[in-house]
Amino acid sequence: MSALKRLLVGRPIATEEQEHQKIPKSIALAVFSSDAISSTAYATEEILFVTALGASSLALGLNTLVPIAIGVAILLAIVVTSYRQTIFAYPRGGGSYMVTKENLGRYPSLLAGASLLIDYILTVAVSISAGVAAIISIPALQGLRDQRVLIGLFLIAMITVANLRGIKESGRVFAGPTYVYIGMLSLLVGYGLFREYLGTPLEHIEFEPGAFEGTLASGGNLTLFLILKGFSSGAVALTGVEAISDGVPVFRKPEAKNAANTLVLMGLILGSLFFTTSWLAHHLKPYPSHDETVFSQMGRAVFGEGPLYLIMQVATAGILTLAANTAYADFPRLASFIARDGYLPRQFANRGDRLVFSNGVLFLAIAAGALLVAFGGKTNALIPLYAVGVFTSFTLSQMGIARRAYRLRQPRWQLNVAVSSFGSVATFAVLLIVAITKFSSGAWLPLVVVPAFIGVFLLINRHYRSLRAALVLEPGRVRPQAVNHTVVVLVPGRIHFGVLQALQYAKSMRPTHLAAVHVADDPEEMEELQREWEERGLDVPLDAVHSPYRDLVQPVLEFLDELDARWDDDTITVLIPEFVVKHWYENALHNQTALALKLALLQRKGTVVTSVPYHVSRQDRRDALDREQADEATEPASEAPAPPAPVGAAARPSANGDQPAGEDQGAVSGTTEV
Amino acid sequence: MSALKRLLVGRPIATEEQEHQKIPKSIALAVFSSDAISSTAYATEEILFVTALGASSLALGLNTLVPIAIGVAILLAIVVTSYRQTIFAYPRGGGSYMVTKENLGRYPSLLAGASLLIDYILTVAVSISAGVAAIISIPALQGLRDQRVLIGLFLIAMITVANLRGIKESGRVFAGPTYVYIGMLSLLVGYGLFREYLGTPLEHIEFEPGAFEGTLASGGNLTLFLILKGFSSGAVALTGVEAISDGVPVFRKPEAKNAANTLVLMGLILGSLFFTTSWLAHHLKPYPSHDETVFSQMGRAVFGEGPLYLIMQVATAGILTLAANTAYADFPRLASFIARDGYLPRQFANRGDRLVFSNGVLFLAIAAGALLVAFGGKTNALIPLYAVGVFTSFTLSQMGIARRAYRLRQPRWQLNVAVSSFGSVATFAVLLIVAITKFSSGAWLPLVVVPAFIGVFLLINRHYRSLRAALVLEPGRVRPQAVNHTVVVLVPGRIHFGVLQALQYAKSMRPTHLAAVHVADDPEEMEELQREWEERGLDVPLDAVHSPYRDLVQPVLEFLDELDARWDDDTITVLIPEFVVKHWYENALHNQTALALKLALLQRKGTVVTSVPYHVSRQDRRDALDREQADEATEPASEAPAPPAPVGAAARPSANGDQPAGEDQGAVSGTTEV
Repeated sequence: MSALKRLLVGRPIATEEQEHQKIPKSIALAVFSSDAISSTAYATEEILFVTALGASSLALGLNTLVPIAIGVAILLAIVVTSYRQTIFAYPRGGGSYMVTKENLGRYPSLLAGASLLIDYILTVAVSISAGVAAIISIPALQGLRDQRVLIGLFLIAMITVANLRGIKESGRVFAGPTYVYIGMLSLLVGYGLFREYLGTPLEHIEFEPGAFEGTLASGGNLTLFLILKGFSSGAVALTGVEAISDGVPVFRKPEAKNAANTLVLMGLILGSLFFTTSWLAHHLKPYPSHDETVFSQMGRAVFGEGPLYLIMQVATAGILTLAANTAYADFPRLASFIARDGYLPRQFANRGDRLVFSNGVLFLAIAAGALLVAFGGKTNALIPLYAVGVFTSFTLSQMGIARRAYRLRQPRWQLNVAVSSFGSVATFAVLLIVAITKFSSGAWLPLVVVPAFIGVFLLINRHYRSLRAALVLEPGRVRPQAVNHTVVVLVPGRIHFGVLQALQYAKSMRPTHLAAVHVADDPEEMEELQREWEERGLDVPLDAVHSPYRDLVQPVLEFLDELDARWDDDTITVLIPEFVVKHWYENALHNQTALALKLALLQRKGTVVTSVPYHVSRQDRRDALDREQADEATEPASEAPAPPAPVGAAARPSANGDQPAGEDQGAVSGTTEV
Repeated sequence: MSALKRLLVGRPIATEEQEHQKIPKSIALAVFSSDAISSTAYATEEILFVTALGASSLALGLNTLVPIAIGVAILLAIVVTSYRQTIFAYPRGGGSYMVTKENLGRYPSLLAGASLLIDYILTVAVSISAGVAAIISIPALQGLRDQRVLIGLFLIAMITVANLRGIKESGRVFAGPTYVYIGMLSLLVGYGLFREYLGTPLEHIEFEPGAFEGTLASGGNLTLFLILKGFSSGAVALTGVEAISDGVPVFRKPEAKNAANTLVLMGLILGSLFFTTSWLAHHLKPYPSHDETVFSQMGRAVFGEGPLYLIMQVATAGILTLAANTAYADFPRLASFIARDGYLPRQFANRGDRLVFSNGVLFLAIAAGALLVAFGGKTNALIPLYAVGVFTSFTLSQMGIARRAYRLRQPRWQLNVAVSSFGSVATFAVLLIVAITKFSSGAWLPLVVVPAFIGVFLLINRHYRSLRAALVLEPGRVRPQAVNHTVVVLVPGRIHFGVLQALQYAKSMRPTHLAAVHVADDPEEMEELQREWEERGLDVPLDAVHSPYRDLVQPVLEFLDELDARWDDDTITVLIPEFVVKHWYENALHNQTALALKLALLQRKGTVVTSVPYHVSRQDRRDALDREQADEATEPASEAPAPPAPVGAAARPSANGDQPAGEDQGAVSGTTEV
């Protein structure tokens, strides 16, 4: 297990090495921008799905592309400008959640946190399924179309392992595809539009009615509602713009400046790619289909089916996988912030031994994998949910920045407030557009899921806070004192080496009261045990408890209640002699009754339960067997008391022992598991 | 969980009530004979499968039925006579395993035990699939033919629950079908043969080539080998004859006499039913098929498809289910004998709270269910394995009885020796016939599986024996003495109520040496803790252990090694303050680091690890939250030392405490799960 972990994840990294995990700008652009840039690979298609199918006319749908692209580009410029301020205001990162928490308070921050966590999960599911779609669009790979879910799960598993290894290495693994994708897309639109400019345009894509998922009326109708709905789909191109502001601390120094420049560069690349591909699509007339992506159709129209087309498809799948990777960089980080504030289980705030927040990574992988399976690898249905969350956090974050600028009144604060307020209003307007136009196609779901997340946050927080408050100590000196102490040794059906060790351990605790107890369903066995107890001269009183239903737990609990009444001591410790197996499978050979008893006693107040382990080495056992066979004819003569060895020491049987043998069960013999 | 168990299984039954679980003869016949009698439902078909398909001629196959039936009836008479002696010789039950153990020694008894255990599992799988075949043979239920496995698993689940409730009740549940089956089969052959006798025979069954699974050559060939192979299949009718001798103790007094009479009665019923149905089949000419059983074809030929036919099919399914139930009565009992001898895990020897050997019942259910799934509900392939095991145990058992009679030389011992020896030789001959004629169809498998079982028996036995030998104490007086004792308290990142309790518990143990240790990956946190430790005036030295990889286990182990070197005490106890959650799901909110540490320390010799639990009630937590909110503005003034409460008591926070709050994690904070 451990060796497997090392092989997959690599050697542990010390906390002091943290600084070295920072990454240069060129890699940071790839790691943090891939989410935003890769959304160009499906945003155009999503617009077409909505407008062409909604208007029942491919031509009308295609006409909406350029206007919507202009709208999205403007929105992008607003958001990037606004987020630059966030980076400088919060160079330690934290993004929407941190900003909202500090400036708008607890509940808005939880709203932002919940929206973002859900969005990161959706990023993985949507990006991976779009990446798989790029691969299976390749005509030669049509045979894989039924395997989308499996391929997607395989990709998720790969990213997960890469991320458990740590952020820097995953950055390197994934940097290539981003630049290849940007290059190929530039080539695609450059060559395509160049041909238009020369007056020798490419032939437009031939429409295949069978692959188009919808009916086409001859005279379709394009309403404003439909255009806005298309715009809502196009707005998913903005998802991921906030990633950089969350991840400022992993940039090299000066972190804020590097991050801000990277953000602007990313905005320029994203905006120009999205606008130009939409323009080219308007000319080439691709159609939305689950069999082949819009980009694949355009690629084949421009490049043919040769190597350039194949490189573009592979790079598309690559950058989309990298987009999923963005979420892997940010989800665990955000979850750790929220966990440190006490709204998520603490485990999310622990760095694994490769300095990664391993629990967050694993949680994200499982959640996204489940979505992928549930939607059969076709995640268009998730797009509206996605957009709602993204614009919720945009709005809150910029509102927070505006408020902060107003509060601090640093130089040029009026401009800052104006920029952020405008950004906030703009994204809020988009949020409303998305929520209204896509309400019935799934945008209502966040209304259920986000409050559910917030509810869980609050419950968890209440748990931690109340516990902390109840455990707090008065300030000042405290002096723990020894209290009266009753120790009870649980005795199995035979007196063997392990029992002796437990009795010895009990005496070492120097208890106020000491008792031994045996639970029996067989009176004969009980009598025999009591006889041997006396013969051996054990100076601890042995109590017998009858168990009519061959159960161990209930009789012991009753006995303890009785003890509590007999001696009014403060603490009872129950000692259970327990044989320690060397290999897990040996557990099958020993009664697991002790475990049930331990769980039951854990809930009993004022009670501590302790296993006194006894070890027997393989060699000792082999020797004992040999002796037993050798001495089978000899009668024992020795009457000297056997000096018990200290707890945990190996058993040292006498050389001529053929006494009725000891019981090797962990707990009372003759009793039954429950 | 517990409520569900009670609902399914019923109230617990005390050990003293054992006698009341005995059953009258009429029910015993149903419980113990159903296995043997029900095999008539598939034995004829198995003969036809072998002979008709082997000779490529249905007519030749049908001709073998009556001669083979005569051979089987003779064999049955021999075996019943021989087993009557077993019952009187061993009125306490135990069957082949006990008999072989006492008279032939260890290895033959393990051979018998392994063969029988496997046979019981096969009984369940074969009977259940044959029962399902009877149901889906009904023309109206053809639609269920693809669901054989599911129906079979459902039946196994039902029998399992019935048997977990206890033997008497399951006897009652299942008694009906046996008598209805015997009645319906008598009616079938009675009416069918009566028509033959009157000279107005029934029309024979029309052969459907499509349903027949094999090719029919015009001139088939019937060799002696094929007839013996058919006989090997017919011999499965004898399976289950030994069940009564295993179960003698559950008969009413006089147990042996009642059991022996029941055995003879069963032999008569079984022999006559098998012989007459084979005779009738010879006339009606059914054909072997997986779509419709031979019995169903005969039933439709005699009764039509009316209610009589339906009753017969349902009763067939019923008695076959009951046959599976026979194995449920005997497998757990035999497993308990073997476990008591130390060749199987002890758990098989434990009676559950309904006096049933619950673990054996569950093991049987899982093993048979797995076979059913593996063979897709068509278990003909298992028949040869079945026969090998049955006749192995028959042979050994009767050999043992013969040897016993020879040794004891009671009155008429010569006759007894002769009868048992003859029986042994006869069944050994059949064993050879089965092994040779069916070697390639699966009879070779027991050659692998049975020795594997015996190997596991011996390994388990060696484990128990060597452990017992190594733990045995010298005879005579022993006096456990207190030894020097080092106690180490594991301190989390903050000093809270639970830490104080652990320190107090540590002092109550009055150790020779006492130390506290904190594992930290953050030096700042460590310094702050040390400062608070001093401020609070705690008189236990606090050691700091640095954990560069945020791991808890390794640093603690190293610290303990160092302690061992520092103080040469005999025993180290590690105390871990641990918060006890009320509900299992709360575990998700607390680090599970303590668990990993406990597992690691269990393997360390001379070390005991103890969780010191602290409980915080829901009410206390609610109160603490209220106080915290109410006192938010008040500054603390009190400097009086807080008296620590005894271990496990509820936390009692001061009324004005707003000190840096305690950590509620079970183990060291700032560390990471492994």
